[in-house]
Amino acid sequence: MIDIRERYTTQHISELLKEAEVASKRAHAPYSKFYVGAVAVLKSGERVSASNFENVSYGLSCCAERNLMARLNHDQCVKDVELLVVYTKASPPSAPCGMCRQVLVEFFDDLLILMGNDRGEHRFLTLRTLFPEGFNRAELISGQTD
Amino acid sequence: MIDIRERYTTQHISELLKEAEVASKRAHAPYSKFYVGAVAVLKSGERVSASNFENVSYGLSCCAERNLMARLNHDQCVKDVELLVVYTKASPPSAPCGMCRQVLVEFFDDLLILMGNDRGEHRFLTLRTLFPEGFNRAELISGQTD
Amino acid sequence: MIDIRERYTTQHISELLKEAEVASKRAHAPYSKFYVGAVAVLKSGERVSASNFENVSYGLSCCAERNLMARLNHDQCVKDVELLVVYTKASPPSAPCGMCRQVLVEFFDDLLILMGNDRGEHRFLTLRTLFPEGFNRAELISGQTD
Amino acid sequence: MIDIRERYTTQHISELLKEAEVASKRAHAPYSKFYVGAVAVLKSGERVSASNFENVSYGLSCCAERNLMARLNHDQCVKDVELLVVYTKASPPSAPCGMCRQVLVEFFDDLLILMGNDRGEHRFLTLRTLFPEGFNRAELISGQTD
Repeated sequence: MIDIRERYTTQHISELLKEAEVASKRAHAPYSKFYVGAVAVLKSGERVSASNFENVSYGLSCCAERNLMARLNHDQCVKDVELLVVYTKASPPSAPCGMCRQVLVEFFDDLLILMGNDRGEHRFLTLRTLFPEGFNRAELISGQTD
Repeated sequence: MIDIRERYTTQHISELLKEAEVASKRAHAPYSKFYVGAVAVLKSGERVSASNFENVSYGLSCCAERNLMARLNHDQCVKDVELLVVYTKASPPSAPCGMCRQVLVEFFDDLLILMGNDRGEHRFLTLRTLFPEGFNRAELISGQTD
Repeated sequence: MIDIRERYTTQHISELLKEAEVASKRAHAPYSKFYVGAVAVLKSGERVSASNFENVSYGLSCCAERNLMARLNHDQCVKDVELLVVYTKASPPSAPCGMCRQVLVEFFDDLLILMGNDRGEHRFLTLRTLFPEGFNRAELISGQTD
Repeated sequence: MIDIRERYTTQHISELLKEAEVASKRAHAPYSKFYVGAVAVLKSGERVSASNFENVSYGLSCCAERNLMARLNHDQCVKDVELLVVYTKASPPSAPCGMCRQVLVEFFDDLLILMGNDRGEHRFLTLRTLFPEGFNRAELISGQTD
């Protein structure tokens, strides 16, 4: 199982959350006023970021984590992701919503996720913990009618 | 915690899954060929059903469970739901996807879910088990920028 | 082309919009406070209604028109729909959003839509007018990689 | 109204469509096998690209155009977009779906869109032509209940 969290020092965590906070400023969130920044840390140390964007027809709003996954997929570096960082102003720091968990499971068996806010609060959780029994491709195939 | 599952006999479970299977036949699922039926059992014993429907633009596909919630909300009986039954052909029987878990959490603190297929397999799980740390309204409010 | 609008008298239009307004009261729209009611008038004269419901993760919000289509599909009466009525408080009365137009096109070649509010304003538009070049199944098939 | 299409020579169009085709190869589209590439041409001449990505829960699939908009928004260059190029294998070349039109309308009053495939077919259309009466923020505000 994932346990690379000891690799992240307090200093490193603080820098990553700051970077995700900066990303959140780019969100288009005039409806919810809930600004989210997501940063993927790659094995190389490189980082890729995204933010949420909303729509006047609320159902078209797309979370920072999903926008990040679209970007990582297009940039062909999904396999290099080591850590997902999610910044919100919420306390306790919000975990990804159900949509995002389902999108993460499309690409990762498991994933370490760091969540934090601007009050110095943070926590680590894994995708497996957040999304037990996630719907997957084996189930889709198993349940398809001929 | 929820434990009303002893109220459901083998016979009752079998009938409910049959009813959800019948509901699944009404799905519009020409793209995935994954037909899902969902049935809500109300406290009165009454049952309400729904199925999934898909779209040529895949992102507009909507699961049986979410269509059921829309129906229950409109029919003003969300508060009366005692059990959610989900039928798929998948083995083991599929649990609701991440989108559906997030929609259920909008309306229920917890919920007993019965999943089954047409091979006699079934299992009970709770929403809390399936969706720990579900994103909720308190977090939204806590994280909104003024 | 559709022209059954002469069949709808002022009185009839007023009643249909009132019915859609009543449907809108059942919306779960605590985030947008935009309450929408949709009513399908079937060839038999029967009517089926739905409302929008939203989610704390805004992207899971589902419009009244799409919830109505899910219901009509499950109730096996899509083919019997003669008119779609949409009530909002907006002035001028809102037309269905892009998501809804795409969902309607999955089921209808064309459709007459009556939009109105509670100020006595209303207008008729057709799906074809609202959604030229709608993405359809022939295009999907034509563009699939083997 | 928009008429910058004379600025695009046959040679230029062909290069842009080739670039969008290359982008389409990065799509994650194992379910639909419908690979879409989208390229935004900025006023500076710079280009930004994206592709679609799908999910085993089909409703979480996200189109190339929407993924592109998320990227442009995050990269703070939405206002610099001069042309949207969309590549599919479909014949005639597909226009953006309803979801994408609604997302485009969130950011653009109007937009020139070039659609093409790998058979040498292409066409130009505008967002206004494709999406008359697009649902917008003025309507949302006008229709909100206090």
